[in-house]
Amino acid sequence: MTYCVGLLLDAGMVFASDSRTNAGIDQVSSFRKMKIFERPDDRVVVILSSGNLSITQNAISILEQRVRKPELGPTIWDATSMFDVASMLGECLRDVRRRDATFLQESNVDAGASFIFGGQIKGEPPRLFLVYSEGNFIEATRETPYFQIGETKYGKPVIDRIIKLETGLMDAAKCVLVSFDSTMRSNVSVGPPIDLLVYERDTLRAGLLRHITAEDPYFRMIHTQWGEGLRRVFGELPNPYWQDTPQ
Amino acid sequence: MTYCVGLLLDAGMVFASDSRTNAGIDQVSSFRKMKIFERPDDRVVVILSSGNLSITQNAISILEQRVRKPELGPTIWDATSMFDVASMLGECLRDVRRRDATFLQESNVDAGASFIFGGQIKGEPPRLFLVYSEGNFIEATRETPYFQIGETKYGKPVIDRIIKLETGLMDAAKCVLVSFDSTMRSNVSVGPPIDLLVYERDTLRAGLLRHITAEDPYFRMIHTQWGEGLRRVFGELPNPYWQDTPQ
Repeated sequence: MTYCVGLLLDAGMVFASDSRTNAGIDQVSSFRKMKIFERPDDRVVVILSSGNLSITQNAISILEQRVRKPELGPTIWDATSMFDVASMLGECLRDVRRRDATFLQESNVDAGASFIFGGQIKGEPPRLFLVYSEGNFIEATRETPYFQIGETKYGKPVIDRIIKLETGLMDAAKCVLVSFDSTMRSNVSVGPPIDLLVYERDTLRAGLLRHITAEDPYFRMIHTQWGEGLRRVFGELPNPYWQDTPQ
Repeated sequence: MTYCVGLLLDAGMVFASDSRTNAGIDQVSSFRKMKIFERPDDRVVVILSSGNLSITQNAISILEQRVRKPELGPTIWDATSMFDVASMLGECLRDVRRRDATFLQESNVDAGASFIFGGQIKGEPPRLFLVYSEGNFIEATRETPYFQIGETKYGKPVIDRIIKLETGLMDAAKCVLVSFDSTMRSNVSVGPPIDLLVYERDTLRAGLLRHITAEDPYFRMIHTQWGEGLRRVFGELPNPYWQDTPQ
């Protein structure tokens, strides 16, 4: 499994991904699921991957190799809009699935794959997309300024409660780590290290980038204090009023 | 969708179920998913249902009607163990699916159904079971003293953090309501009223039984104070230490 989150806030963007992949529970390993394309002062483009690892890796490789075929048109390095790059990524995903999906299906292997894709290209505001397995995609709007892929449910309530458009970037990074902590507590197939990127709007530089292991003191502190805090809040809630008034 | 929880604690048991059913988003209605069989001082048996409503209702009706066919052996009213009743319920579910599943599949309707099933029969300790769609079942052990069915993920983290075997019944009821609040906040297809039953070990009576609407003052208080409490705990967590130390 996998867990990835991308946020699009007034102040910038936050991206995070776990690193655990497994092909059966006896074959667990660690792969980065965050890919960053950065040319300072021009563009920062981030791709987070979920699903079949061969499919997502191949799609991104094809996207990268496109620079060798100028006849195909703009590449990730000279596209003038994030929308155009999202289309390219969707096409690359379709290419790989066209080539591999039937063979995978013959062995009952899921060829599903999806991406959170976002960043900023000079001349545009920051933008965030979700690219589906079929290569189609949607863009985040102000009403729902985030996307999740993979094991999304355990970590969603805290994001829904905390994240607003005006949330500051460090608060948002903190919230994302709480969301990862809840997810990893409930699903062992999501695991550290966590790749975290905090992008400040209009800087056109990757900004804060951290590879957070299970031993990271800040992440451990979050884990402990969040759990203790929840238990404290729970303890402060009064017991049911209607204790002595059966219906 | 549906959300149901059953807990088996040292002090007794807690059962809860939501009431929302939907056949497409334009056909939403309210049905109780908790069925109670009680004969004071002899047995209290509770069934919580998830999945296709016609399948779960029919399976329970067949279980009830079995009393008219004494040649089939013990019924829910004279079985001497919860294990035997769990087997009966599994058989009834298989009967209904055998009769209906093919027809449902022809219309691409999911015939899946599962039950949380528990209670106490005189002479036994309280017991809790999970009956799967296929009619097979498992029993809760001291390591994991609860079962959930339906939309289980949003409400699982708080149960994992709070519930222990020694948790008191009113604390457990409170925790279950927090779990429902988180679930209903994230999935509109789980909705009130919530049926809640608190069973005190060895009393062999249904005990506290509440039908909790969205306007219930205690449930509203839980909703507000839990949300505020989480935001307060979040606010108290320090921001990332490594803010000024990009990797």
